[in-house]
Amino acid sequence: MKKDVIGLGLLGLGTVGTGVVQVLRDNAHEIDRKVGASLKIKKALVHNAGKKRPGLEDLELVTDIDAIVSDPDIDIVIELMGGTEPAKEYMLKAMAAGKSVVTANKDVVAQFGLEMFAAAAENHVDFLFEASVGGGIPIITPFKQCLTANRFTEVMGIVNGTTNYMLTKMTEAGMDYDVVLKEAQAEGYAEADPTADVGGFDAARKAAILASLAFNTHITLEDVAVEGITDVSAVDIEYAKKLDYVVKLLAIARRVEGKGIDVRVHPTFLTKDHPLASVNGVFNAIFVRGNAIGDAMFYGRGAGGRPTASAVIADVVEAARGILTDSRGRINPEFFEPKQLCPLDETESRYYMRLRMDDRPGVLGSVATAFGWAGVSLKSVLQRHVDDSAEVVIVTHTVKHSSMVAATQAVAALPGNAKVCSVIRVDKSLETE
Amino acid sequence: MKKDVIGLGLLGLGTVGTGVVQVLRDNAHEIDRKVGASLKIKKALVHNAGKKRPGLEDLELVTDIDAIVSDPDIDIVIELMGGTEPAKEYMLKAMAAGKSVVTANKDVVAQFGLEMFAAAAENHVDFLFEASVGGGIPIITPFKQCLTANRFTEVMGIVNGTTNYMLTKMTEAGMDYDVVLKEAQAEGYAEADPTADVGGFDAARKAAILASLAFNTHITLEDVAVEGITDVSAVDIEYAKKLDYVVKLLAIARRVEGKGIDVRVHPTFLTKDHPLASVNGVFNAIFVRGNAIGDAMFYGRGAGGRPTASAVIADVVEAARGILTDSRGRINPEFFEPKQLCPLDETESRYYMRLRMDDRPGVLGSVATAFGWAGVSLKSVLQRHVDDSAEVVIVTHTVKHSSMVAATQAVAALPGNAKVCSVIRVDKSLETE
Repeated sequence: MKKDVIGLGLLGLGTVGTGVVQVLRDNAHEIDRKVGASLKIKKALVHNAGKKRPGLEDLELVTDIDAIVSDPDIDIVIELMGGTEPAKEYMLKAMAAGKSVVTANKDVVAQFGLEMFAAAAENHVDFLFEASVGGGIPIITPFKQCLTANRFTEVMGIVNGTTNYMLTKMTEAGMDYDVVLKEAQAEGYAEADPTADVGGFDAARKAAILASLAFNTHITLEDVAVEGITDVSAVDIEYAKKLDYVVKLLAIARRVEGKGIDVRVHPTFLTKDHPLASVNGVFNAIFVRGNAIGDAMFYGRGAGGRPTASAVIADVVEAARGILTDSRGRINPEFFEPKQLCPLDETESRYYMRLRMDDRPGVLGSVATAFGWAGVSLKSVLQRHVDDSAEVVIVTHTVKHSSMVAATQAVAALPGNAKVCSVIRVDKSLETE
Repeated sequence: MKKDVIGLGLLGLGTVGTGVVQVLRDNAHEIDRKVGASLKIKKALVHNAGKKRPGLEDLELVTDIDAIVSDPDIDIVIELMGGTEPAKEYMLKAMAAGKSVVTANKDVVAQFGLEMFAAAAENHVDFLFEASVGGGIPIITPFKQCLTANRFTEVMGIVNGTTNYMLTKMTEAGMDYDVVLKEAQAEGYAEADPTADVGGFDAARKAAILASLAFNTHITLEDVAVEGITDVSAVDIEYAKKLDYVVKLLAIARRVEGKGIDVRVHPTFLTKDHPLASVNGVFNAIFVRGNAIGDAMFYGRGAGGRPTASAVIADVVEAARGILTDSRGRINPEFFEPKQLCPLDETESRYYMRLRMDDRPGVLGSVATAFGWAGVSLKSVLQRHVDDSAEVVIVTHTVKHSSMVAATQAVAALPGNAKVCSVIRVDKSLETE
């Protein structure tokens, strides 16, 4: 007999959990018609069942995961607690009890994806995680379905709203990193301890997930080379503008022919023509380059209760359709090719470098010679006098990372108190089309 | 027993058909692993089986649709002929024979969608049409799956590559419409008879499909108010720049509270901050605004053999998964709510108007008075002396279409040889956030 009701169990009632409850209420008419059954939240797991939750009074709250896992009326468990434990344990329990699982948990997916997919397959349930990357933006489903025809050469994403907000502010208002960080914290866009965001670690988890999907392999956090935005200064952003670039924190995964997959997170000088260049504020976007579709981009809000709920509920609808048509697990997670990673030293890029040294005749000559010695050829060099020093700004042609490291060391060792202030990669993806 | 091979029948071997063959060959390894079976083109229907087709020699060509429809080894029929007949008849035959159908045919979907969906349901097969809008860009699947949690208030798309290429050229090079059209024809971006593109009719078909999906109703071509770009001049584009806008041909569908769905295609002054404003050349993009996800955009190539093949093959994979897991038809096409259309006169917008009249004292006063008489309040007015005339450029506040029509008539009737050169809508979607 066809089910009329699909029962949901919610783990966590924070911003996203509340968003899920609200959107399911607001749009119940449309959603239920599209599913062909009614989606009902049966129980929600919380720490403190006594806490006041305005507008959520009619939810049945429980504090024990077994009350959800053992409830035969719950078909789908929605995990929105975050962090690895006990979220991972709870999801495994739910799948072992035959329930499909929907999660927004980037930590669990990035670190324990294989284990979760295996559990889903073993228990003939769905394990869906659209909301783990890019908030509301559909990107996981596109990889699993809409873009299956493609072999990808490149995925580049602005996947952290906090840092994109900060870089946008620094660009538009010419403000310094510390000032912008304080402002972002005051406005609730950055946390009291901002390390996960500004250090690039949140983006790195998402990079691992995106790279795994794009290249049908298994990339974990440990495989991602990470640099955050803490060293990006207002001066660098000003030079970027002059050189016709914008600075973005990008999660990048590339297939380097013959060398393997190159996965990184770092600030990047991006040409203003690039579709990602105009993605500002808290918006996120993921740009892909495939051998069928060419260039494509997916843009939207990367965080927030209702946008993330949009992705969570889409997965719930998908899981519900799987239950109603008896086709759970119809799409295998596709992390099946063994990975080969491109060593960081072998990756290639153009680079921007800003350095200071004593302003004496011959400054440019000595810097250029140091680069030449390291085998790095220069595209442009600017010099100006600042605070009694010479400030030299260099953009290189495409070079291996190892050569750029050698050049940086050579420059730092120059006489005249040379100091390398910043080294930032310059994207060249539009040039290689 | 699980099938090892999914047989495909191809109707049409033009640009997209050839793209499908090539991409299936290039990426067979990845695609077949994702599907869990091998996708094989069994037969291709062509007009002239004797024609030389370099690289396609190993395809079995047939000239009779029955050779495909009656072939038990063909599970999925891919229709890439275009036009309504015989494409529609062939697809109905294929579905009647129990085959799922994948098509890129915007004409059939826009005009006969309901009939095709009914046939699919009746025969328990899939009817999939991702490639009918936006070429390779995933937008149909997002509406059916990834965005199901949303009620939409607005969908806006750049869905015709020819006109976007032309408007981009006019904007970047300051070229006139006629010159750009000739150039686009020479470069193969516009057809010898460009009416379907420059008249907005291609975009109107796609607007009907997008509006139907976004608002769960049934909008046909006849429901769409259409204006093309033939009257957009270099002068208007120059004024747009001065006023901080770009001119785009947009397909727009909006839910007007209490009045119904408003579906239109017309050139639009779009503020430079809008995500669609930087979509240039032959690229397409679809911008959506939902009550969960907020603003989101999907960007990519709207035409071409391989990009369109990306969407076609994604649908083929979807149909194959339906066959392999015995879950064909798991997603109902959702055109189920009766439609209520907002009458054109009741739609609201801001407007740009450019007019000329004899340059005598009192010109601005008489124009402003005419607008006031029609109940249209003005946001800005510019006047300059051109070719012995006064050129007046007006941007209005938000007004009803009927009021703007009255104002246009009143201005045209002014003494002093007043001539309205152009009236173009000004988008205000970012202002209403």
